[in-house]
Amino acid sequence: MYARMICMIYLLVLWVSLSKQEPRNIQLKPPNLSGQYRINVSPFEEIANNVQIEARANTGYPCNGTFTKTNGTTCGLKEIMLGRCYEYQYIKRGLYLSNTTDIKNCTELYDLFESEVRYKPYCNMNMSTYSKYFEKALAGVHVINRAIFWSGTYAIAHTYSGHGSNYITLEDTLAANMLDGLMWCGKENDTEGFDYVSCPNNCKDNRWADLAFWGLASRTFAERVSGEIYVVLNGSRTDGRPTYRNGSYFAEFELPYFKRNGSFRVTKINALVLHTPDLPVTEKCGEKSLVFLEKLIRDAQFEYNCVDDPDELIMLMCADSWGARECQVARNSLRQLWDIKLYGTSNAIIHSLSFVVLFCIGVFRQIV
Amino acid sequence: MYARMICMIYLLVLWVSLSKQEPRNIQLKPPNLSGQYRINVSPFEEIANNVQIEARANTGYPCNGTFTKTNGTTCGLKEIMLGRCYEYQYIKRGLYLSNTTDIKNCTELYDLFESEVRYKPYCNMNMSTYSKYFEKALAGVHVINRAIFWSGTYAIAHTYSGHGSNYITLEDTLAANMLDGLMWCGKENDTEGFDYVSCPNNCKDNRWADLAFWGLASRTFAERVSGEIYVVLNGSRTDGRPTYRNGSYFAEFELPYFKRNGSFRVTKINALVLHTPDLPVTEKCGEKSLVFLEKLIRDAQFEYNCVDDPDELIMLMCADSWGARECQVARNSLRQLWDIKLYGTSNAIIHSLSFVVLFCIGVFRQIV
Repeated sequence: MYARMICMIYLLVLWVSLSKQEPRNIQLKPPNLSGQYRINVSPFEEIANNVQIEARANTGYPCNGTFTKTNGTTCGLKEIMLGRCYEYQYIKRGLYLSNTTDIKNCTELYDLFESEVRYKPYCNMNMSTYSKYFEKALAGVHVINRAIFWSGTYAIAHTYSGHGSNYITLEDTLAANMLDGLMWCGKENDTEGFDYVSCPNNCKDNRWADLAFWGLASRTFAERVSGEIYVVLNGSRTDGRPTYRNGSYFAEFELPYFKRNGSFRVTKINALVLHTPDLPVTEKCGEKSLVFLEKLIRDAQFEYNCVDDPDELIMLMCADSWGARECQVARNSLRQLWDIKLYGTSNAIIHSLSFVVLFCIGVFRQIV
Repeated sequence: MYARMICMIYLLVLWVSLSKQEPRNIQLKPPNLSGQYRINVSPFEEIANNVQIEARANTGYPCNGTFTKTNGTTCGLKEIMLGRCYEYQYIKRGLYLSNTTDIKNCTELYDLFESEVRYKPYCNMNMSTYSKYFEKALAGVHVINRAIFWSGTYAIAHTYSGHGSNYITLEDTLAANMLDGLMWCGKENDTEGFDYVSCPNNCKDNRWADLAFWGLASRTFAERVSGEIYVVLNGSRTDGRPTYRNGSYFAEFELPYFKRNGSFRVTKINALVLHTPDLPVTEKCGEKSLVFLEKLIRDAQFEYNCVDDPDELIMLMCADSWGARECQVARNSLRQLWDIKLYGTSNAIIHSLSFVVLFCIGVFRQIV
C-alpha cells in the first residue's frame, strides 16, 4: 500500500518534470535500421498487393530514359548480379569470409542462372529449375555455428547478422546475395527474353514456380549449415499468424533439411523469440506454436533451446523503433549518463525518477 | 553526507546482486553495426599501413582462381561499378530517391570514368581528372535539408543515414556509391590498363593524385547541398587529433564549398559531436577546435548550431559498442522492462538498483 502511494508520487513528479522538459534546439530523424528492401513473400499464401505499382503495360521495355516502377524483371538484372558476385568475392571476402580462397567464375554463374530463365515461361519453373546454379554457387560452403535463420524478422535478423560479419543468413551467401531484392521472369518469343513489365508471381496451376528460387535457396542453405544454429522468430506478429507457422519458408524448406548425421550435422537449434517494442506479446518460449516447434526439433534428435529477447537484440530493436514508449526509459538513462560524461553532473537529474517507473510497474503488477 | 552513505549501501547491494547473476544459457555475439568497409584515408597524411596486405608482386593478374588480397585495383572494378549503378537507379530509387525519375546511362558513366584512368599513370592525376564524371553523375542532384557529412565517424554516420533512406551522405549519391570501398589505378603499357597488384596511393611529387577522386567527390557533393545540413564529428578521438581539423576532407573540400547565395544555398550547419562509449571526452561543443569551427562557419554567414550526442545517436552507439560499461545501465533497464513485458514482473527487480548508480555518480561529483 505504501509502495503504491510512493509510486504515485514518483510518477506525478516525473510527469511534471517531463512536461517541463526544455525543447531541443535540433530536430533529427530517428534512425531507420530496417530500411531494407526485400519484400518478404510467404511461400504458401497469396501475395499481398500492398505495394503500389505503376505498370506501364503499353510500353515494351521500361529500362530506358525515365524511371517507371513495374512489377516485372528488375532493369539491369545481369549487371547487378555480376557486380554483386565480384563485390562478394573480392571485397566482402577480404573482410570476413577469408577462410575460403576459391574464386567462383561470376560469368559462369550468371550464365547458369540465365539459361534456366531467359526465353522460358515463368509458370513452367519448378523446384529443380535452379539446382545447377545452387550446386555451383554454394559448392564448398559450410556454415558452422554461424548460421542464422529468420521468419517474420527479416530486418532485425539482417541488421544483427552484420551482412555476414557476425552471423550468416541465407542472404549473406553468394548464391542468394546475387538475387536478394531482385525480381525476374522469362518471356517466350521476346527479344529481351525477360518480361520487364509484369511477372506473374502467382501461377495458379503450378504454385512451385513461385518457390523455384527462394524455396530451393532456403533448402540448399539449410543443408549446408552445421553445429549450433539460430532462428530469429517474431513473438509479436500483428497479422494473426503464429510465431512458428506451417507454410513458412522456415517450416517448409529449412527445418526439414537440417543434416542429422555426419560430421557437418546440426547439433542444436536456438530459437530467439523477439517481441517488438510497443506491440503486445503474442507468443513466448514454451507457449503455443513454440511448443509444437520444440517437439518437432526434439523428435528430429536436435538439441533445442529457446530464449525470449536476448539482450543483444533488445537494444537493436530500440535503436530502430526509436519512438517506442518501451524504449524511452533506456533513452532517458543513456541521456543522463552522457550528460554526466559530458558535464560532470546530469542537467536533468530529476529524470532518474523515470527509472522508478520500472519499479512501480513491478509493484503494481504484483499487487494486481 | 547521508546521500553518500546511502549510495555506498546501494552500490554494495548492487554489486552483490550482480555477482549472483545467473549464467545465461546462450552466448550470442554482440551486434556489429560498424562492419563497414571503407578505409578512411586522411587526405593530407601518410597512409597508415595497419592493413596487412599480401601483395603478390610476381604475378601479373591476381583476379583468377584463388583469392589474394593485394593493394592494387579491385578485381571486377567495371562489373561492380555497373552493377551498383543499376542497383542504385532501379532498386534504391524505388525506395527513397523517388523525387527524380531521370535514369542515367550507366555504361556512359563507367566509360567517362575509365577514360580518365585506364592506361594512364596514377601519379599524373589531379583535381580535374574526374570532373566530367562528376558533372554527369551528379547532374540534377540537389540535396535539401538531408545532407549529412562526417569526419572521423564513418561507420556511425552511415548507419544513421540508413543508406540514403534517412539522410544522405556523400557515399549515398550515385557518383560516390559506384566507387565506395573500391581501389583503382591505371597502368601504362599494360594489356589490362589497370594495376591489379599495387597502387601507389602516395605520389611524392603530386599529392593531388591521391585526392583526385575523393577530394573532387567531396567538393562536388558539398556544392550540391542546401538548406540545413549536418556534420557528425568525433569528440573522443584517440589519435590525438582535434575534432575539427585542418587537413580533413571536411575542412579542405566541403566546408569551403557550401553555397552561400542563390536559392540552393546552405542556411545552417548543425555540428553533431559524438562521444564514444567508454572513451574519454576530448572535445565538446564550445571547446577547443569547435570554437574555431564556429567562427569559420559564422564568418561565412551560415547559422551554426552544435549538439553533443543527440539521443538518436547514443542508442545507436550503444547498440554497436555492446560491451561498453557506459551502455550497461541502458541494457539492464531494457532487460528489466522486457522481463516485465514478458512475465508481468521482472525476474531481476533488484537490478533496478543499477539506476541508482547514476544518481550516486551525480551525488559524488557534486560533492567533489
